[in-house]
Amino acid sequence: MQPHFGILFLFTFLSIKCKAVRYDPTWESLDTRPLPRWYDEAKVGIFLHWGVYAVPAFGDGKYTSSEWFWNYWKGAKNPEHILFMMKNYPPNFSYPEFANDFKAELFDPKAWAKLFERSGARYVVLTSKHHDGYTLWPSTYSFNWNSYDIGPGRDLIGDLFKAIRSHTDLKTGLYYSLYEWFNPMYLRDKNNDFQTDTFVSNKMLPEMFEIVEKYRPEIVWADGDWEANHTYFRSTEFLAWLYSDSPVKDTVVVNDRWGIGIPCNHGDFLTCKDRFNPGELQPFKWENAMTIDKQSWGYRRVADITEYFTTTELIALLVETVSCGGNILINVGPTSDGKIIPIFEERLINLGSWLAVNGEAIYYSVPWKYQNDTVSETWYTSNDRAVYAITLAWPGYDELRLGLTSKLLEDEDTVVTLLGHSEPLKWNVIDGVTCIKFPNKATVLSKHAWAVKIPLKTKRKYNLRQPEMMLGNIL
Amino acid sequence: MQPHFGILFLFTFLSIKCKAVRYDPTWESLDTRPLPRWYDEAKVGIFLHWGVYAVPAFGDGKYTSSEWFWNYWKGAKNPEHILFMMKNYPPNFSYPEFANDFKAELFDPKAWAKLFERSGARYVVLTSKHHDGYTLWPSTYSFNWNSYDIGPGRDLIGDLFKAIRSHTDLKTGLYYSLYEWFNPMYLRDKNNDFQTDTFVSNKMLPEMFEIVEKYRPEIVWADGDWEANHTYFRSTEFLAWLYSDSPVKDTVVVNDRWGIGIPCNHGDFLTCKDRFNPGELQPFKWENAMTIDKQSWGYRRVADITEYFTTTELIALLVETVSCGGNILINVGPTSDGKIIPIFEERLINLGSWLAVNGEAIYYSVPWKYQNDTVSETWYTSNDRAVYAITLAWPGYDELRLGLTSKLLEDEDTVVTLLGHSEPLKWNVIDGVTCIKFPNKATVLSKHAWAVKIPLKTKRKYNLRQPEMMLGNIL
Amino acid sequence: MQPHFGILFLFTFLSIKCKAVRYDPTWESLDTRPLPRWYDEAKVGIFLHWGVYAVPAFGDGKYTSSEWFWNYWKGAKNPEHILFMMKNYPPNFSYPEFANDFKAELFDPKAWAKLFERSGARYVVLTSKHHDGYTLWPSTYSFNWNSYDIGPGRDLIGDLFKAIRSHTDLKTGLYYSLYEWFNPMYLRDKNNDFQTDTFVSNKMLPEMFEIVEKYRPEIVWADGDWEANHTYFRSTEFLAWLYSDSPVKDTVVVNDRWGIGIPCNHGDFLTCKDRFNPGELQPFKWENAMTIDKQSWGYRRVADITEYFTTTELIALLVETVSCGGNILINVGPTSDGKIIPIFEERLINLGSWLAVNGEAIYYSVPWKYQNDTVSETWYTSNDRAVYAITLAWPGYDELRLGLTSKLLEDEDTVVTLLGHSEPLKWNVIDGVTCIKFPNKATVLSKHAWAVKIPLKTKRKYNLRQPEMMLGNIL
Amino acid sequence: MQPHFGILFLFTFLSIKCKAVRYDPTWESLDTRPLPRWYDEAKVGIFLHWGVYAVPAFGDGKYTSSEWFWNYWKGAKNPEHILFMMKNYPPNFSYPEFANDFKAELFDPKAWAKLFERSGARYVVLTSKHHDGYTLWPSTYSFNWNSYDIGPGRDLIGDLFKAIRSHTDLKTGLYYSLYEWFNPMYLRDKNNDFQTDTFVSNKMLPEMFEIVEKYRPEIVWADGDWEANHTYFRSTEFLAWLYSDSPVKDTVVVNDRWGIGIPCNHGDFLTCKDRFNPGELQPFKWENAMTIDKQSWGYRRVADITEYFTTTELIALLVETVSCGGNILINVGPTSDGKIIPIFEERLINLGSWLAVNGEAIYYSVPWKYQNDTVSETWYTSNDRAVYAITLAWPGYDELRLGLTSKLLEDEDTVVTLLGHSEPLKWNVIDGVTCIKFPNKATVLSKHAWAVKIPLKTKRKYNLRQPEMMLGNIL
Repeated sequence: MQPHFGILFLFTFLSIKCKAVRYDPTWESLDTRPLPRWYDEAKVGIFLHWGVYAVPAFGDGKYTSSEWFWNYWKGAKNPEHILFMMKNYPPNFSYPEFANDFKAELFDPKAWAKLFERSGARYVVLTSKHHDGYTLWPSTYSFNWNSYDIGPGRDLIGDLFKAIRSHTDLKTGLYYSLYEWFNPMYLRDKNNDFQTDTFVSNKMLPEMFEIVEKYRPEIVWADGDWEANHTYFRSTEFLAWLYSDSPVKDTVVVNDRWGIGIPCNHGDFLTCKDRFNPGELQPFKWENAMTIDKQSWGYRRVADITEYFTTTELIALLVETVSCGGNILINVGPTSDGKIIPIFEERLINLGSWLAVNGEAIYYSVPWKYQNDTVSETWYTSNDRAVYAITLAWPGYDELRLGLTSKLLEDEDTVVTLLGHSEPLKWNVIDGVTCIKFPNKATVLSKHAWAVKIPLKTKRKYNLRQPEMMLGNIL
Repeated sequence: MQPHFGILFLFTFLSIKCKAVRYDPTWESLDTRPLPRWYDEAKVGIFLHWGVYAVPAFGDGKYTSSEWFWNYWKGAKNPEHILFMMKNYPPNFSYPEFANDFKAELFDPKAWAKLFERSGARYVVLTSKHHDGYTLWPSTYSFNWNSYDIGPGRDLIGDLFKAIRSHTDLKTGLYYSLYEWFNPMYLRDKNNDFQTDTFVSNKMLPEMFEIVEKYRPEIVWADGDWEANHTYFRSTEFLAWLYSDSPVKDTVVVNDRWGIGIPCNHGDFLTCKDRFNPGELQPFKWENAMTIDKQSWGYRRVADITEYFTTTELIALLVETVSCGGNILINVGPTSDGKIIPIFEERLINLGSWLAVNGEAIYYSVPWKYQNDTVSETWYTSNDRAVYAITLAWPGYDELRLGLTSKLLEDEDTVVTLLGHSEPLKWNVIDGVTCIKFPNKATVLSKHAWAVKIPLKTKRKYNLRQPEMMLGNIL
Repeated sequence: MQPHFGILFLFTFLSIKCKAVRYDPTWESLDTRPLPRWYDEAKVGIFLHWGVYAVPAFGDGKYTSSEWFWNYWKGAKNPEHILFMMKNYPPNFSYPEFANDFKAELFDPKAWAKLFERSGARYVVLTSKHHDGYTLWPSTYSFNWNSYDIGPGRDLIGDLFKAIRSHTDLKTGLYYSLYEWFNPMYLRDKNNDFQTDTFVSNKMLPEMFEIVEKYRPEIVWADGDWEANHTYFRSTEFLAWLYSDSPVKDTVVVNDRWGIGIPCNHGDFLTCKDRFNPGELQPFKWENAMTIDKQSWGYRRVADITEYFTTTELIALLVETVSCGGNILINVGPTSDGKIIPIFEERLINLGSWLAVNGEAIYYSVPWKYQNDTVSETWYTSNDRAVYAITLAWPGYDELRLGLTSKLLEDEDTVVTLLGHSEPLKWNVIDGVTCIKFPNKATVLSKHAWAVKIPLKTKRKYNLRQPEMMLGNIL
Repeated sequence: MQPHFGILFLFTFLSIKCKAVRYDPTWESLDTRPLPRWYDEAKVGIFLHWGVYAVPAFGDGKYTSSEWFWNYWKGAKNPEHILFMMKNYPPNFSYPEFANDFKAELFDPKAWAKLFERSGARYVVLTSKHHDGYTLWPSTYSFNWNSYDIGPGRDLIGDLFKAIRSHTDLKTGLYYSLYEWFNPMYLRDKNNDFQTDTFVSNKMLPEMFEIVEKYRPEIVWADGDWEANHTYFRSTEFLAWLYSDSPVKDTVVVNDRWGIGIPCNHGDFLTCKDRFNPGELQPFKWENAMTIDKQSWGYRRVADITEYFTTTELIALLVETVSCGGNILINVGPTSDGKIIPIFEERLINLGSWLAVNGEAIYYSVPWKYQNDTVSETWYTSNDRAVYAITLAWPGYDELRLGLTSKLLEDEDTVVTLLGHSEPLKWNVIDGVTCIKFPNKATVLSKHAWAVKIPLKTKRKYNLRQPEMMLGNIL
C-alpha cells in the first residue's frame, strides 16, 4: 500500500496538465521536456512498414530491404532490382503503377489489433508515409498518391487506429518520412542546396500537421532526415507546436531523426540508427528498431525461413535491449493484400507467451547497475522490488552462475525464484559467484530465456522521470 | 510585288519588339493589349483532349463527353457511368487506377504533326491538364499524377511540341484547367468559400508558370473557371506576367475563361461557351471550339459513325465561323494507346483538301460587311482583293443566286471565278439579285462547299490590328 | 410475266427437296452438287476476322496481317513482332494470355446486324476459329480456349447469328481453320507426316460437326488447309455428310480450301487464294475475299487512313469482281471490345448507298459476254433484261465511250439510262464506238461509279444453275 | 553383417526383373502385384497442391479448401466465394482468367528439393492436374490450359522432378484427377450416364500415358474418381499397362481412387478418404494424406496461424499413422508466385529435425503387435531389432508408464534408451506396468515427441513383402 506515492503522482500529473507548458522552437527548449512516463514503461512496440512496396515485395543481393525498392531500382540502379523488373514487368512499367495492385483486400484491422495485443507489445507504429511519398491516409497534399485514392480505397491509418483503440489498450504511433526520394518539389529544393523549401511548405509540414490533428498519434517517428538540416525541415518549429499546442501535447513522444546531426542528440527517445542495440547502458532513453525479417522492413515474398529471427533470437534481443534501457520496436511487414503472414503471427504469439510469464521483468523495469553478467550470458533488469537475471541459454548442468549478484544475496533467507516455475530455487554464493540450481526443465513454463528473480531487501525509490535515475543506480 | 508593305510591316514588327510593353494585373490594363496578328490569320486550329479518360473512353445517356468521366461517375453519379463500371471493373476500382492503362504506346508525334499540317490547321492546342488534374508533362507539383510518372512514361507535351515545331510551321498552344474536381486542396478552398487559396498557391499557379516557361505555348487556353472568381485564381496576376515578362509575351494569345464573369468579356479571343457559333458578326475576336465527335471532347470507344460530323458538316461550320469573324478549333480525341483513329484522320485530310483549294477564302480573311446571304445558304469572307461567297450546297439548276453582291458587280467586265475551277463563271444581275452560273460539277475540284470569288475593283486597305477593321466594313 | 418459268422452278425445287440427294465422300460425287441459287445471287458478303488477335491488334513490317500475330511472333520470329512484345509486355507473356483482354464488352450484335444490312451485303461470314485455335463458341473440344470460358464470356457466334436472323434477311456463314499452328495434337500429327490423325479425330472434325449442327451456317468457309492433304483432314467425309445429312444440306455452300491441291479445283465456289480477283471471266463460281484494311484481316490499331481502301476503290473492286462472275467478301476486323470502328462503318454505309442506287446491276446479275470494255475503264454485268456498263470514272467531257456495246444499240429507239438519274441519256454509235452523253454530275445520285443500263430487245432466258450459263453468253 | 541375406535379396531382385511379370486388366490380376518395397519403407511423403487456384488462394465459410475454388464458386455457388469474387473482380471474370496471374516467378525447384529433403520426407507427390483440368506440364491434350502455355510458361513437373532427382534421393510421384468438373467432354459423357467416353479417350487416358512416359513417376496418385465406375475410366486397362509395360512398371505404386467402389479396396496402397487416420492397425498398406493448413490443400492467403498444425500436432499425426501401418503424405500448398511460405518451411524443417533424431523409429519400421499403449498416450513401432514406444507428451513426474511392454523387459539387463539422449534410462516393471524414468528434459535433444527404444532379445525376421508381416506380429 502506498497511498502517499499515488497522491503525489496524481498531484504532479494534474499540475503538469494545468501548467500548460510551452516550448520554443529551439533544441534548448525542446530538450527540457520530460519523457511521458508511458513510453519507458511500455518497452515493446510493433513497427509496421506497409505500402506500395509490398507489391513487388522484393529485395535481393546488396540491397534487400523491400521498402527501398524504388530507390534501389531507379536510384542505385541495383542489378538485381533491374533484373527483377525486366523479368516480370513490361519495360516502361513505373513504380507508381504498382499502386493499383496494393489492394489490402484481406485487411482486417481488428485481427491485427488482437494479434498485436497478444504479442505483449504496448504500442504500434505504422508508416504513414515512407520515402516513396505514398500516404496511408487520404492526405490533402498527396492527390492520387495515397491509399484512399489508389489501391486499397481506404484510410488505412484511420481503420487501424480505430481498431486498436476499440479493442486494445495499445498506444498508436505514426512513422513519417521527412523526405521523398523522387518528389520533384523535394528534388528541386535539394538541387537548390535546400535554399528553397517548396517541398516543406507545400507538402511535408502540412501533412505532419494533418496527421497529428486527425489521428492524434502518441508517437511521431520521423525518418528520412539525413540529407538536410533541421532548419530546412523546420523540425523545431513542428516540435514546438507538437509539444505546446497539438492535441497530443501531453502524451506524445518523438524520436530523434529530425535533420543532419540530430539523431542520437535530440528527441524524446533516441534511435541513433536502425537496429541500434549498443549492448551497454545509455545515458538517455533509446529504442532498438529492428525487424523480424532480418533483411527487410517491408514484406519480402522472397524471404526464406532462415532469414527470419527465431523466437529465441527475438527474445534475446528484447532482453538485451531492455536491460540496457531501451525499448524494442519489432518490425513486421504486412502483405499487399493486407495480411500479416503466419510466420510473423507465430513469432509474435510466441513472444506474447514469453512475456505473459516474464513480463514482470520487462514492463515498468529500469536498468540495474549492471547490465550483462560477467560469468554467463545473462542480462539484468530491475524494478523497485527486485533484480531480474535473465539467461538466454539453459545453464549447463542446470546451474546458473552469476558474477555480479553476490551483494544482493548476503541474506541467506533470500528467496530466489524462476519466473514460470512454482518452487524456489536453491542457491549459494562461492567466491563471489552466485550458483543457482535450475529445476528439471520439464517443470518450467518458459522457453527461450529464463528470468531469475532476486528480491531487494528494501523497496527502492526512484523516479522514472529523472535522467539520473534512468541510469538505474540503486546502491 | 509589294515592297512598301513589306518594309512597313517589318518596321512595325521591330518597333513592337523594342518597346517592351508592360501590363498591370488589372483587366483595364490587360484589355489594352493588341491581338497578335498570327492568331486572326490562322483561322483553323486543332484541339486535342487527351488523358486518362481515354482509357474508359466512355460517355452515354445524359452525359456523353468522355473526358468528364470521373465527374459523371463519382460526382453526378450518372447511372450509365455507374453501370459501366459495375459491369467492367471490380467494385473498388478508382479513376486514378485507369492511369496504368493510359500507355500511349503507339504515339507517333511526327505522324500527328504531319496530319495536323495536312488538315490545313495553323495551330494545335493540347490539354496539358484537364479537370481530373492529370498532367501531360512531368509537373513538379503533381507527383505521380502525370504522364511521366504513371502511364505513358513520357513528357507528352514536350514530345508533341518538338515534333510540331520540327516538322511543321504550326503554332502550339496549351489548354489548362484552373480547377480540379477532386483535388483535396481545391475542395478545401472551395469549402472555405475560396477564402483560402492553398490550391492556387501550391499547385495551379506554379504549374501555369512551369508550362509557359518550359513549353512556350503561343496559346494559353484556360478552362474550369466557373466555380470561383478570377481573384481566387489570381488570373490577372498570371496574365500580367504572361504579357509582360514571360518568354512568349509578344506572341501568346489567351482565351477568356479566367473566373466567374470573365468569359465573353476579357481575353485575347473569346470562346464564351463550348461550341460558340453565334451566326453573326461579333465585335471581338472569338473562337468556335467544337468537336468532330459531336458528343464528346475525349475519345469515345462507344461512338458510332452517326455521331461524327461529316466532312460537309465540318466545312459548313468552318465557313460559318470564319465568315462571322471567328476561328474554329476542331477537337479530336486521341486514344489511350496514342492514335488518332482513321475516321478523324479522314475528316482532317478531307478538310485539308478543301482548304488546299479554298484556303484563299479562309486564311488571312476578314469578315465582309455581310456574313450570310439573304437569298441562298451562302457565307461571305473577304480580303483586300476580293469578296468570297461560299455556298454550302451546290445550287439548284447550277445557278447560284445572291442577294447582297450586286454593288460589287456594277462593272460587267468583272471576272467572277469559282475556286477549284479553271474557267470564269457567267453571271448577271437582275433586280438586285446576282445569278452566277455554275459549271458542270464534274469539272470542279471542290467538294462539300464552293467558294465564288468576286474581285474588288480597288485593293482595300485595312489593318488587321485595328478593332474597327475587325468588323471588316469596306464601303 | 413468266408463269412457266416460275412453275418449272418450283417443281425443280420441290423435286430436289424430295429426292434426298446423297453424295459420296469423293470429289467426283461432291462436284456434281449444283450450287444453291442464293449464293450466286447475293454477290456481296461481309467477312469478319475476330478473335484474341484483336487484343494486340498489331501488324507491321514484313508481316502486317494482325490475325497471324502469334505465328509471326513465335513462328516466323518477325523482328517487329518481337520488338512490339518486348516493348509492351513482360518477357514471359504468352499469346494465350491476351485472351483475358478480349472482352467484347461493347459488342452489340443487333447494331452489327443492322450495319451489315445497311451495307447492302447479303451474307456474313464469321471466323468461328482461326489458326490460333480459339473458338468463338463454347466448343466441347476446346476447353478454356474459347470465347465463353475466357474473355467475353459469351457465345459470340450464337449471339451474332441470332441478331442477324432476327433483324435482317442476311445469310450467315462460318469460317473455320482446319489447322492450328500451335495445337500440340496437330503438331504431333504433322511431325508424323500426317500418318496419325489425333488432331482431326479429337478436335477438328468434332468441332466442324458441332458448329454445323448448332449454328446451321449457310456457308462453311474452310481455311488453313495448306499443310496436309484432304485425306488427312477427311474433307470429303465431312462434305458428304454436310451435303447429304446435315441440317443445312440443301442451302449450304462451301469454299475450296480443303487440303493441298484442292483450292481452285473443288468446292461450291472457289477462292483460289486471298484477294483472288482475276480480272476476267472464270469458268466457275468464285469469290474475292478481300479486306478494307489493305494490310490485314484482323483489326489493327496501328493502321493509318492511307491503309484503308477508299469507298471508290472498294466499289471498283466490287464491280470488277461481279463483272467477272465472282462474289466479293469484304472483310472487316472488329476490335477486342466488340466495336466495328467508324471508318469501317463509313465504308460499309457508303457501299450501301451505292448499292441502293446501283444494286439492280449487281444482285442477281450474271456476267455478260464481255467483262471489261476495250475503250474505257468500264465493266459489264447483265441480267435477263439488260446489260449494265459500269464506269469507274466520270467520263472526260461527260461522254462515255464504249467499244463493245454497238450490237445492243442497233435500234435507235433504245432508251439508255444512268442508274440514279431520272432522264434518258443521249447516245450514238460511230464507227462501232458507242458514245453516251452523261448529264451534269450535279444531277446524278451516284458517286464513285456509274452504271449505264442498256436494255435487251428480248428478255434473255438462262438458267443460273447451268455452268455454261455462268459464262453468260447471250448472243 | 548379413552377407547371406544381401545375396538372397539381390538374387530375388534380379529374378523379379527377369521374369517380366504381366498383369491383366482385372482387379483380380492387378491385386496380385506385390507392393514395391521402397514405398513402405519411406513412411513420409510431401504432397503438393499447386495450380491456378493458388491465385485467388481463397477458402472460407462452409468450403475452405482453396483448390476447389472453381467448384465452390460456380458449382456449389457458395455465398462466401460469390462474395469474394464480387468484391475483388469484375462481374464477368472467369476462373480460367486467373491463369494469367499464376506466374511462379519465384519458383526455385532446387530450393524446394532441398527443403523436402531436409524435412525427412522420402517422396514427393505433385498435382499434375487437379479437377480444374489445368495441367502442370505441356500436355498434348490440354492446349492453352497448362502451365507451359499460360501462366508460368514452364514445365513445372519437369523442372521440379529434375531438381529432386539431381539434388536428392527422394522419389517422385504425380497426382492426377480423373475427372474435370467443367470439361465439356466430361460433362457430356456424364450427361450420357457415362455411356460415351469421349473424355476418357480424347483426354484422360492419353494424358495419363503421357505423364508416365515423360516423367516416370514412382507414384501415380489418382483422384476425382467418385462420379463414375472404373469401367468408364478404363482404370484396370491403364493399371495393367502401368504394371506390365510402362517404364516404371517395377517401382511404381498407385493409390486406390480408380472409380466408384474402388477406394479402400484396390490399389498398391489405400487412402480410403482424405485424412484417413484410423488409429488402429489396418490389414493393408495405407496412406494418411493430410494437410498442414488444416482447412485446405491449396494455398490460402486467408489462413491464420491457428489454422496450421503445430509441429507437435504434426509429429503426433506422423507417429500415430506410422504406428498403425500407414505412410503419411503431408500436404503443402505453394503460392502462385512459386514459394513455399515460411510457416510451411518451419514446420517441415522442424519435422526434419525430429526425424533426424527419431528416424530410426520411423523409416523401415513395421507395426508392432500393439499400436497404442493402454496406459499413456504412446504409440509403438518396431523393426527387426527393437520396439519403439513414442510418447506424445513429456511424462508427468518424468516417468513414462507403459502397459504393454512388460514381456519385452523380462531380462533385467535390457538397456532401454531414449532417442536423442546419451544415457540409458532406468526402468522397472511393477504389476505389469513398465515405468521408465526420463532424464532432465534439458539433456534431451528431441522436442514434441520422445521415442523410447526397447531392444529385442533376438533379431526378428520378417519379410516386408508378405501381407501377414505387414501386421507385424512378432511373438
